[in-house]
Parts: sequence; C-alpha cells; structure tokens
Amino acid sequence: MHKIPVGILGASGYAGRELCALVSGHPGLELAFAAANAQRGETVRAGAREVTFVAADDAPLGAAELVFSALPHGASAAWVARVRGAGKRAVDLSADLRPGNGDHTAPYGLTEANRAVLKGAEVVANPGCYPTAILMALLPLVEQDLVRPGATIVISAASGVTGAGFTPRPDLLFAEVTENYNAYGVGNEHRHLNEMRAVIAAAGCDVDLLFTPHLLPVARGILATITVPLVRSLDDPLAPFRRHWAGEPFVEVTPLPPTLHDVTHRNVVRMSAHVAAQMRTPTLIVLAAIDNLVKGAAGQALQNANVVLGLDEPLGLPA
Amino acid sequence: MHKIPVGILGASGYAGRELCALVSGHPGLELAFAAANAQRGETVRAGAREVTFVAADDAPLGAAELVFSALPHGASAAWVARVRGAGKRAVDLSADLRPGNGDHTAPYGLTEANRAVLKGAEVVANPGCYPTAILMALLPLVEQDLVRPGATIVISAASGVTGAGFTPRPDLLFAEVTENYNAYGVGNEHRHLNEMRAVIAAAGCDVDLLFTPHLLPVARGILATITVPLVRSLDDPLAPFRRHWAGEPFVEVTPLPPTLHDVTHRNVVRMSAHVAAQMRTPTLIVLAAIDNLVKGAAGQALQNANVVLGLDEPLGLPA
Amino acid sequence: MHKIPVGILGASGYAGRELCALVSGHPGLELAFAAANAQRGETVRAGAREVTFVAADDAPLGAAELVFSALPHGASAAWVARVRGAGKRAVDLSADLRPGNGDHTAPYGLTEANRAVLKGAEVVANPGCYPTAILMALLPLVEQDLVRPGATIVISAASGVTGAGFTPRPDLLFAEVTENYNAYGVGNEHRHLNEMRAVIAAAGCDVDLLFTPHLLPVARGILATITVPLVRSLDDPLAPFRRHWAGEPFVEVTPLPPTLHDVTHRNVVRMSAHVAAQMRTPTLIVLAAIDNLVKGAAGQALQNANVVLGLDEPLGLPA
Amino acid sequence: MHKIPVGILGASGYAGRELCALVSGHPGLELAFAAANAQRGETVRAGAREVTFVAADDAPLGAAELVFSALPHGASAAWVARVRGAGKRAVDLSADLRPGNGDHTAPYGLTEANRAVLKGAEVVANPGCYPTAILMALLPLVEQDLVRPGATIVISAASGVTGAGFTPRPDLLFAEVTENYNAYGVGNEHRHLNEMRAVIAAAGCDVDLLFTPHLLPVARGILATITVPLVRSLDDPLAPFRRHWAGEPFVEVTPLPPTLHDVTHRNVVRMSAHVAAQMRTPTLIVLAAIDNLVKGAAGQALQNANVVLGLDEPLGLPA
Repeated sequence: MHKIPVGILGASGYAGRELCALVSGHPGLELAFAAANAQRGETVRAGAREVTFVAADDAPLGAAELVFSALPHGASAAWVARVRGAGKRAVDLSADLRPGNGDHTAPYGLTEANRAVLKGAEVVANPGCYPTAILMALLPLVEQDLVRPGATIVISAASGVTGAGFTPRPDLLFAEVTENYNAYGVGNEHRHLNEMRAVIAAAGCDVDLLFTPHLLPVARGILATITVPLVRSLDDPLAPFRRHWAGEPFVEVTPLPPTLHDVTHRNVVRMSAHVAAQMRTPTLIVLAAIDNLVKGAAGQALQNANVVLGLDEPLGLPA
Repeated sequence: MHKIPVGILGASGYAGRELCALVSGHPGLELAFAAANAQRGETVRAGAREVTFVAADDAPLGAAELVFSALPHGASAAWVARVRGAGKRAVDLSADLRPGNGDHTAPYGLTEANRAVLKGAEVVANPGCYPTAILMALLPLVEQDLVRPGATIVISAASGVTGAGFTPRPDLLFAEVTENYNAYGVGNEHRHLNEMRAVIAAAGCDVDLLFTPHLLPVARGILATITVPLVRSLDDPLAPFRRHWAGEPFVEVTPLPPTLHDVTHRNVVRMSAHVAAQMRTPTLIVLAAIDNLVKGAAGQALQNANVVLGLDEPLGLPA
Repeated sequence: MHKIPVGILGASGYAGRELCALVSGHPGLELAFAAANAQRGETVRAGAREVTFVAADDAPLGAAELVFSALPHGASAAWVARVRGAGKRAVDLSADLRPGNGDHTAPYGLTEANRAVLKGAEVVANPGCYPTAILMALLPLVEQDLVRPGATIVISAASGVTGAGFTPRPDLLFAEVTENYNAYGVGNEHRHLNEMRAVIAAAGCDVDLLFTPHLLPVARGILATITVPLVRSLDDPLAPFRRHWAGEPFVEVTPLPPTLHDVTHRNVVRMSAHVAAQMRTPTLIVLAAIDNLVKGAAGQALQNANVVLGLDEPLGLPA
Repeated sequence: MHKIPVGILGASGYAGRELCALVSGHPGLELAFAAANAQRGETVRAGAREVTFVAADDAPLGAAELVFSALPHGASAAWVARVRGAGKRAVDLSADLRPGNGDHTAPYGLTEANRAVLKGAEVVANPGCYPTAILMALLPLVEQDLVRPGATIVISAASGVTGAGFTPRPDLLFAEVTENYNAYGVGNEHRHLNEMRAVIAAAGCDVDLLFTPHLLPVARGILATITVPLVRSLDDPLAPFRRHWAGEPFVEVTPLPPTLHDVTHRNVVRMSAHVAAQMRTPTLIVLAAIDNLVKGAAGQALQNANVVLGLDEPLGLPA
C-alpha cells in the first residue's frame, strides 16, 4: 500500500507521542517528521518503532501531505497558517480554531457528528478531550429534542493527568497526585465550557451548562457524569443513543456504566444512560468514557486525517 | 487520667481497624475488647500498639462502658440490642438505625448538627460516609433558607475503595481498580440517598436529590461535588458556611477546592463554595472532602463517644 | 487467510483473558472456545471483540487444533492429558510440566532458547513469568562461560499483582497494595526457583541462585535485578547479550536500565547490563523487564503456538 | 512545658514539610521560622497547623536554639556554618557533612548506633534515607562478626518518589511513575554508597557493597533487600538483631517480611532476617523498611535534635 507522508508538530507531549505511535502503526501513513523544539535530537520509542525529534523550524512541512499540530493553545494557529502556506492540510489539536474560542474558521472535527463537512477539509479543529466525551453523549438527546428547554445540564467530569500535558508542574508530581483527587476550574471557569456551549447552541438547544472537571490519580481516561432534565420520561433510556449512533464503529452504548478500563488505549466513546429514580422531573444520567489521549486527542485526530485524506475512516485506529 | 473501657464489634474491617488505632491513641479510653469472628486469635497493629481479636460471642460486653459496632448493615442492630441488654451504651456505625433506613430509633450522630440530642444518648446511629460530607455541606444552605424550593440538588461524589469494606471482591482487586474509575449505584440507587433525603426533609427543605457515587483508585477519601440552585445570588459564597460552622474545630471552610490530601487521616470536613458563572439561575457549587474512615466513620464515631461519655469532644481525634 | 481454531482453558484469569485478546487479534487463529467454569455464561471484552465463557466440560476440545491451558498449577496436567487424548496439541501455561517441577515430559517453551525442539511439539510447557525474564538475561552469560563457577547469583525481582492471578485474596485488594511494597517467598522459597535451577544446571553452569521476589503496586510488569560474578571483567557489558540474541525480534538489549513502561503490553524482554564499580570481583548487574502477562505468559504461549503450528513466529504478537 | 525554639531551612521540600509537621506536633519544641526562598510568603498546612515560609536570608537564626537544614546537597554546609556562626546548633539533613562525602567533621546521626557521641553535639550529620535502613540492618551482623570477610553484600533497595525531592522533573510526573518501576544509579553509582562504605569500614568490616536502588510508584517508603554471606549458619536468624537492638523503641525485629504499610508515617526501622535455602554458603537475607521522610529524614533529624537538646529521645515522634 502506498503510504501518505504526514508530519507532527509538538510531537513530544503526551498527545504528540500518542500520535507518533499511532502513525507508526498505521498501514496507510508514514511519518515524514516529528518536531519538538526542546527535545530536538532525542530519540524515543513510539509503539514498536523509534522516532527522532527535529526542531520545528527544521521540519520539512512540504514533505507531508498533512500535518498534525499538537502545539500548545495560542502557539498552534500560526503554525497551521505556515502549513497552509506550504499548501498542505492540517489537523489542529489545540483549542485555537475550535468553536467558542474566538474568530475561528476551521470545521470542527467531532468526526461522527461532522463527517460531511470534514471530507476534503483543508484544516480541521480537533475537539477538546472533555467536549468529545460530553458532546457525543449530549448530541443524541439534543438532536432528538429530548432536553428540557431552559434547563441546566450538570456535568461532573474527571480526567487522568495526561490531560494536563507533559509539563513539569509541581502539582502533577507523582507524590502530589497519588491517593489524591480534586476539582479544578470550579464555577464554570474551564476553557472547554465555551467550546461545548457553542456546539450545543449551534444545534439549537437552549440550556445552561454547568461543568466541573476533576483531576484523577490515573494516567489516562475521562469519565463524564451528565445530568439531563428531559421533556418527557423515557421507557428505554438507551434508545436515543442507539438510534443516533447506529452503525458507528467507535461508539459503544451499553446498559452498564462505562469504566476507564473499558476505553483506555482505544479510539471509542463508551456511554450508558440511566433514569433517575425518586425525581419529580424526568431526568437522565448519562455516563460517557473515553481515553483522553486517543478518542480525546490523537486517535480522533487520526480519524479526521483518514476522512480528510479519503482513507477508510477506521484505518489504523485501535477499536 | 482514668481511662474508660470501650469495646469494638466488627473490629477487623477498615472502619474497625481505624477505630482500634484511634482508641489505642486516645488519652481517655482503653480498649476492653476488639471482636472479629473470622479473624479471632489474630494480632494486628493498631497505630503504635497491637490488638488481638476475639470472637464476638466471647466479647465481654459488660466490661465496656460503650461499644462501637462496625458490623455489617443488617447484622448490627441485633448486637446493639445485646449491648443495650447488658446496660451499656452503643455507637452503631452501620446503617441499621439511621434515618431513612426503616423504623430506627437512635439519635443521628452527625455530631456538629445534632450535639444537643447526643449528650447522654444510650445509642447513636453514626452517619454514612457520603452523608457526612454532603449533609455538612448542605445544612448551612438549608438552614439559612438559601436552597431554591422544588429544585434538584445534583451530587456527584467519589470515594476511595475502603468505603466498600475489607471484602475480597474481585472488582476491588488492585489490578481492577488501579488506573480505573467508574460510577455505581447510578440512577439514585445508592443506600445513602434515603439517609440524606430524610435529614434534608426533616430540616424542612423541599428538594430532589440526585446522587451519583463513583469509585476512585485511592485507598481513602471522599469528595462530593454538589450543585445547588439558590433563591438568590450570593456576594460571598463562603459566608453561609462560615456563619453556620463558626467555632467548629472539625469543619474547615476554604476558598480553594479541597483535595483528598487535605483531609486524609484527619477528623475534618473541609469545604469550599463557588458561584457558577454563565448561569441564568443563581447556582452554587459546593465541594466537601472527608476521610471516609475518619470523619466518615471511626473518627466521627469516637467524636460521638466523647459527647455521649461527657469527655471533651475533640479528645483523641486527629485534626 | 485460513484461520486455525484454538481453544483456551482457564480463560477468565489474567493470563487467560490476555490470551483471549491476543487470539482475537491474531490474523491466523480463531477462537474455538474459551472455558472458565466459575464464569461460564459470562461475556467479557477481549481486545476489540467479546468472548462468552463455557464450562470446561462443555469445551469442544476436538474442535481446536491447539489448546492453551491457563488452569491453576496442579489442575492443568490432567486437562493437557485430555487434550492429548483428543489428538490435539497443547501449550500449558501452568508449572505442571516445567523442568524442576517433577517428572515432566514437555519441551520447555522459552522460545528463543529452545526453538529447535519446539517445532512440531505436541505439548509445550510455557515458562513461568520470573524465569522468562531471568533466564533470558542469564543464558547469554551462561552459554558464553562468563559466570564464575561456584558463585552465587543474587536475583531480586519485582512483579505486578496480576502475577498472583485473578484471585480475590484480601492481601491483593487495592487498599492493601496501593502505596505498599514487600518481599515474599523470602529465603529461596518461591516455586520458580527450581525451574530456573533446572535450566541453568542443564546448561552446565554450576552456581547457586538466590531469588527474592517482591510485590509491586502495579497491575503488570516484572523487573529482575541480577548480580552475576564473572570469570573476567568485560569491556563492553552489552556485547555478550547482543551477540547471543542477535536478530531476535522480541529481545531488546539497551544501555539504559529498562522500565516497566518500556515493556508493558509488548511481547518483549528488554535488558541492560552494567559493570559494578568499586568491586574486587568482576561483577555484572543485569536488568531484565517483561510484561508478566505477555512475554511472561500469554504472549510467549502464542509465540510457542506459532512455532508449533508452523506459522510465522511473530504473527499476532505486539512488539 | 517550656518550648525550645527551632528553625527549619529548606522547609518547602518533602523532608522540610515533614519536619514542619513534626515540630508543630512536638510538645517540647516550637517553630521559630521555616525558610524556603522560592515559596517565601506562601502558607501551607503542616499537620494540624499552618506555616508561612520566609526567605532564608530573613530567617532569624539567632531566635532558634537549633536549626534543621533540609537544603540541597552542596548548598547546606555553608548555611550550617552560618548557624554555627550565630552560636546555634544544627542538624544537617543534606549529605554535605556525612562520612564518605569529603572532609566532613560532624558526628553521624544514626541515632541508635551513635547516641553517645551525639549528646551535646553542636552539629549532627543526619544519615541518608537508604543508609538508615541498610546500616540499621547490617550493623548487628557487622558488630557480632557474622559477615564473611571479603564477601560481597548485595543490596537491592526501592524507594518512593519523595526520596527524589520536591523537584518538578518530567520523570517524576504522575503519568511517568504510575504503573512503572526501574533501577537507577546502576553499577554502584549512587551517592549513598560511599556513606555506607565509610560506616561499614569504620566498624572494621572488610566487604564489598553492591547497591542498586529502584524507583517505586509510591509516595513514601523504602525497602532494602540485603543478601549477606555469613561466617557460619544461624539457628535463629532473628537473634543477632534482637540482641543488638534490644530495648530500642524505634527498631522492630519481626519474623515476617516488613511492608511499606508497616512503617509509613512512623519513625521506625522494621526488619526481618531469613536463612536462604539451597545455598552452599550460609547466607542471610535481611529486609529493612522505613519511611524515607520520617526515620529516613525528618523523624530521625528530630530524634537527633531531642538527643542534642537533652530532651527525651522519643518525644514528639510517631512510633
């Protein structure tokens, strides 16, 4: 099989390294370069192969058909512009071009929801990790008009520490995280809130979102626990999800609450839904789990690259 | 100091062992017996001392002034009756005599909230671990009439595995729990819900509670994330809590979100409160953390014993 | 590609489930049955597929070309005999047929060392997890006559808890293992010692082995730290290993000490060797890491099955 | 009780914070200052109290009777000299003044072994964490002439990550350490080797030490696994240890292998000894566990301060 060359900017972070490993094992792609300024010259293992980082300024942008940018928020958009200037496609894993984050222009790469507009796109804004889990869980209810208008959707979510990036912050040291757990960005302060609000509003749903993320003592994985007031009670709480995501290879709808072990190292969203007993308002609890580095970052980025490049969408992705 | 003899039933579980350690270090109490049928004859370290378990039927109930029962739910009430038959006082750590769990009769040992009725009580129903954290966080709002009537209070809480007891269940094995996280009892199915509903209703507050617990990959600690719709917006979200719990040595009200590390091995409830931005209804996020084995079980049981026996309430408790 | 049917006995333990997942993803094998008495009727996820367990007595032994037995030590040999009675091949992951464990007859499946006698074998005794790491690290020195005769080789090794099996023992509960670490089988008491002694002696090396295993608070992975007195000093401590294992796809010889992260979920042994400074006797420290469930159990079993069945040896194995 | 003022330099690291907490709970000491340049002005919880850091240059050295220095190796000696210049005593937790680390002059604070020379000492060199565990395990054999002369003592030890200090190194991030394990300083390269060699040699024992430390995925705790060739076989392997450490409140000699859970948050060394079977040379395996932050650092420093200041040696120390 002819392999399409792709490049990676910001390759030394957690998402970047996951991308290196996924591209290394992808039957239709080959790695043209992996750039990481601070680690330039270092060689690391990526899956079964080794990758040597180059400086970003030395990265041969023109040698790749498509470039993934896993650069930090704020730094990424300018590099995406350079990639575009070289006439190449880009998948941007940062927040820079996502909805709710300013005057973005890029199609939003929540693949299963936006597949039509992604085909042939020149730039894709890859979703945030929390929004991936949460929007995939909410869109079936939103698009089937099941959410009570004007209500508050309460979202309590928890993420492994790789979500905070490969940054040597004291609060991310092992001894600080092990046997610990805490909320952060409390009071609707997290950057991902605007991204979710924008997508929900664009779908015509008038609700408030209340989003509280937490830091888990695990390396990877996100679980979102979502409380949704409904317009009516449901006999089968799973039906709206099964109907909406029918045939999707990377969406799993199950009667049992998903666990992180169910999804880590896999490019899936796994979700369950449960009717809340003893409530005067019909209310659903929806649980959604992903691996923040796979479906929440590098895996979905590769899924989007497959769509953009005209490859089979599941190619090279661990289900 | 003369030491008052106390006994422990169900001493080999996590709460029982914590009680053994706390009693061993208590300047006003001495351990008359520690009973654990399956482990009878075994010697374990409890704090700086060693304790040898006896069979429950061999426990000299009459040699203790007060007996703690850390027996399983369902088995405990009958033993509390035997303790009472021997003319001794009891603190029951099981759910058997708690509000919302049937035709209970015992005063509810949420110490800071119920101190007046606990003094001299013959039997105390020690609260559940989740209700301790959650009710201590809700009562200031409830009793100051700040909760929006008819609203839903959404509670997402997470607990370390010792909350599930010292039971060799396959799902509690290290390899199943490490790097994992999941919800359980989803849909308002957890036993602690009724306990909380009963206490909130008795306080005259008409709300729905929606309670979703989660299992954390940590040994001990609970964090509850509580969303409360308010009757009006608050300038200082901490003020109701500081006012209500003023002078309490075991309650900490802080502007920063509490972490498990803040509270483990300590007999405290630590809480913060945060105004939710971008909401059409005034809404507070209240966070409350405890050590489920200390303030959520053995520590509060000892605190209640201090009250019942007329000792200084903080005696022997790690703050 | 025509797929060869294989069966698994003892499929619900950690090694059994790893085998189910590896077979599910193997391009040349298909799962004829997965037997687990206590879990019969249960369906679990194995890699990207689902597997439903049958009772062992209901397992269609004759429908498989080869049967893996991941049954407990003591119970396995009889089932291997039944498999042989049905005219089928077997790979036995238990200790029953290994050297040093009684009157065994089966060829020893340390694949890289014994490949010649494994081709076409009817039964293979799959090595223990510790012996796999330790023997792969020692054989280069033994076979190049570098070990000082009569010396003591001191082996300190540490394993993740899945090495103890999927058994609900209280000492394997999360709260007992997290933040803990201890030696066990101290004093040359571990069952794997005889297996290693037998292999080393058969290679003509006259040494004492002193083996102390430890339990690590991790799910999977083994690291062995091996001190070997040498007959002479070595200029390049890696040379004997690189020479001996040249061309082996599943052996990695590196100058840096291997970590568990280097090897987990991979069918490799990764090893380094280091000259000990400030010693009067030339002494090498050899470090060897494996994933106890892959190269130390299910992966090597599959590697042996590939050899026995005449498939490409690396087929379906994660490198 | 009159409280003696003490100060702490380097108070924001793991050992420094442990010291703050221990001093806060000590009935005979009070904290005159806690200095930490980078964190000056910050307030942290230390046990049940709060401590606010000052800059080291602002620390009122003269206001303390004794100053603990938990400054980094290399930086500490100059500050100890400043403390001495102010006429005050010092306990130095760094390696600067320890045996085997250059032209040191300070008495070595392995308290139980050196009590006589510590009484009234003006400066004490507090031992390293590994040497504390290992020397306490070896001295009974050394001083009873049981170690085979000229032999090699092989020491494999493992430490929790707080042993590496509160330094934001990428390799100490949670996601790098969880589910991982590796050796470091392999080949007798660790700084603590010289400290141990110096003490063993000073005791008149002629042996080689081979020391391989490992990094454990736990916050705190050290376990050393020590192989000692003996001059003769022992009927009771515990006897030399019980005899040597008789009456010591902070030494525990047990027949069962010690675990980290046995010792964390306690100022003890817990050790066991086991005869190695199937060996031609009589050989003992000695296991020793400590909490690296307590008996291995802050606890022993406080124990030394008690000795130096003429207080009861166990005062304020968690047994």
